[in-house]
Amino acid sequence: MGMSTAPLTIYCNAAFPEPAMETLSAGLGNHQLLMPPLLQTSNLAAGGYDPLLANADVAFGQPDPKQVIETPRLKWVHLTTAGYTRYDTAELRSAMAARGGILTTSSQVYEEPCAEHVFSFMLALARQLPEMILEQKHERSNFRSWKQAHHRSNSRLLVGQSAMIYGYGTIARRLTELLAPFHMKLIGVRRKIAGDEGIMMVPTDQADAHLGQADHVINILPAAAGTDRYFNAERFMRMKQGSVFYNIGRGNTVDQVAMIAALKSGQVSAAYLDVTDPEPLPRDHPLWDAPNCWITPHTAGGHTDEFARLVKHFVANLDRYLLGEKLADRVI
Amino acid sequence: MGMSTAPLTIYCNAAFPEPAMETLSAGLGNHQLLMPPLLQTSNLAAGGYDPLLANADVAFGQPDPKQVIETPRLKWVHLTTAGYTRYDTAELRSAMAARGGILTTSSQVYEEPCAEHVFSFMLALARQLPEMILEQKHERSNFRSWKQAHHRSNSRLLVGQSAMIYGYGTIARRLTELLAPFHMKLIGVRRKIAGDEGIMMVPTDQADAHLGQADHVINILPAAAGTDRYFNAERFMRMKQGSVFYNIGRGNTVDQVAMIAALKSGQVSAAYLDVTDPEPLPRDHPLWDAPNCWITPHTAGGHTDEFARLVKHFVANLDRYLLGEKLADRVI
Ligand SMILES: NC(=O)c1ccc[n+]([C@@H]2O[C@H](COP(=O)([O-])OP(=O)(O)OC[C@H]3O[C@@H](n4cnc5c(N)ncnc54)[C@H](OP(=O)(O)O)[C@@H]3O)[C@@H](O)[C@H]2O)c1
Ligand SMILES: NC(=O)c1ccc[n+]([C@@H]2O[C@H](COP(=O)([O-])OP(=O)(O)OC[C@H]3O[C@@H](n4cnc5c(N)ncnc54)[C@H](OP(=O)(O)O)[C@@H]3O)[C@@H](O)[C@H]2O)c1
Repeated sequence: MGMSTAPLTIYCNAAFPEPAMETLSAGLGNHQLLMPPLLQTSNLAAGGYDPLLANADVAFGQPDPKQVIETPRLKWVHLTTAGYTRYDTAELRSAMAARGGILTTSSQVYEEPCAEHVFSFMLALARQLPEMILEQKHERSNFRSWKQAHHRSNSRLLVGQSAMIYGYGTIARRLTELLAPFHMKLIGVRRKIAGDEGIMMVPTDQADAHLGQADHVINILPAAAGTDRYFNAERFMRMKQGSVFYNIGRGNTVDQVAMIAALKSGQVSAAYLDVTDPEPLPRDHPLWDAPNCWITPHTAGGHTDEFARLVKHFVANLDRYLLGEKLADRVI
Repeated sequence: MGMSTAPLTIYCNAAFPEPAMETLSAGLGNHQLLMPPLLQTSNLAAGGYDPLLANADVAFGQPDPKQVIETPRLKWVHLTTAGYTRYDTAELRSAMAARGGILTTSSQVYEEPCAEHVFSFMLALARQLPEMILEQKHERSNFRSWKQAHHRSNSRLLVGQSAMIYGYGTIARRLTELLAPFHMKLIGVRRKIAGDEGIMMVPTDQADAHLGQADHVINILPAAAGTDRYFNAERFMRMKQGSVFYNIGRGNTVDQVAMIAALKSGQVSAAYLDVTDPEPLPRDHPLWDAPNCWITPHTAGGHTDEFARLVKHFVANLDRYLLGEKLADRVI
């Protein structure tokens, strides 16, 4: 713990399992923890209005955004997610500005799992793993057919291929590190290029001109103004014939009907989605059976020690907060 | 083409598809190609005794090893595989030595696909992809159940984990490059340590002492004296509880009965095999349904331009041969 101050009240509406809760209690020292009594175990989803929040100096979890605006005492909100769309409004920004408030995210906790996860699917699709896994276990699908020559000639190498990465932030930077040994031609896309990205960058409004060259189109766009249905029919048509599309950002950034059409025509040869619209995806949704479309149930950020790492990340930020240092993953 | 000499006769018993054949013809210049007339398309498997070989100075493909010994005119054999077990005999070595003969392999053609392939399974297993792929498509297996919390908490990160790599040669070196951004603790195993491997190395006879520390045990051993059933019951017991075992070397290097027992007891949490004994694996073989055992039909080396790259690799070696330069992938 840092410099001593009067004890703070720290609201938490994330239901961490026991070992992570112990780390949290230890990390708080003499500051006071406020937790709603009836949290569902491992529920990190959005909570609603909670009278407890009114007494908090700091909130850790997913406090109700409207209530954050209405609680001037609350000076710092640390989210348990990397995304912060619900908090990214003019009202919340100006309410926080008026009280000198801070919003931080858990971006650094999720950069490694998300980067490893989307990368795992880049390699899995290149190496034909989904087909071979189904052939081993799925009696309807060429059951144990040992289609060696077929899979060998369809297997691709990542080395030397090209990729565009949309939403070039924390996750994308780590992905670029993981891809370095493959000597790929990478282009990153964001609105305001910082200059320290280390790969070729293009601003969002000039990205279309490059889209047709990419073997891999990797979507890590946040849900935000300007990203809704960003990948629309026109952009799927601009993609290179046979390219592979990935989405680990948010489901609403993709026109799913247009994507299914692109898969059916072969314009896009495969798609991998960790996020969809809606979630959970209903059992009879056409995405499940779209050709060469692979779906995971929003697991990109998951990892065995996720809860422990979320708590450690918050506690490290709390230490910085108490010392008046720069916080990690600050967005407001 | 290099220095001009009298035209050589070059025997080839690999059935390359048309574009690769054209590259080969172009690469041979005025040297004479000898090919058996009835090659099956895309058959790179071992050929038998062939009278044509008697007239060859050079052989490219998989010439019969006994016939290689009996053909003193044959000065250089370039194999279309990375493995060369059938040729690695005292008789063949001494026959080649007597005529100043050379044996080269296609190791460099397969290093990239094999390294990418085993790496794809390391990530796929860490990120729970096989289970999720089956849940999407396999009606018997929690069909479309959106088991988000389950998969998130079982997903692992590769970063910081440990691995032992057995058979530390060409493929292993490339794998080490691919793994660099993951900052893993790597130990390589081979008989004669060269000193230029760039990671911690232990000789084969001291490897057992380290086996219990590895999260990932990666077997790239060739089929050779001393490697038959190398991974036996005792070594599976020495492995770290919950470790993951991979085999992309040769099927006979593993005691498959012992491996299945280790999977059933949970001693080994998952196995990935590209090679098995026998191949193709019969439909009712117990490996197919061993718990968390994933099998691909010997496709690790496959890639869309495999045949073109095999031919280019040979032609580049031919140029070196004609110039008297050092050949790539020379093993005898
Ligand atoms: N699937 C999962 O489990 C999972 C887990 C974590 C995160 N995510 C998603 O991934 C997103 C990115 O996470 P992160 O940690 O990398 O966030 P981040 O560090 O905030 O990066 C997001 C990047 O997107 C860029 N961006 C925003 N609007 C854009 C637009 N219209 N066009 C192009 N680029 C735009 C931003 O740069 P500019 O401001 O310069 O545009 C920023 O660099 C999150 O917002 C979340 O939606 C998903
Ligand atoms: N699945 C596929 O599609 C596929 C494709 C290509 C290759 N392969 C297999 O992978 C093997 C390796 O390929 P590579 O290109 O990397 O070959 P490589 O460059 O010849 O490497 C093999 C390494 O194994 C070591 N080795 C040999 N016997 C050993 C033993 N008893 N204990 C420990 N290490 C031993 C050798 O070093 P020392 O001499 O110092 O022991 C050598 O460094 C091939 O032999 C082949 O069986 C499979």
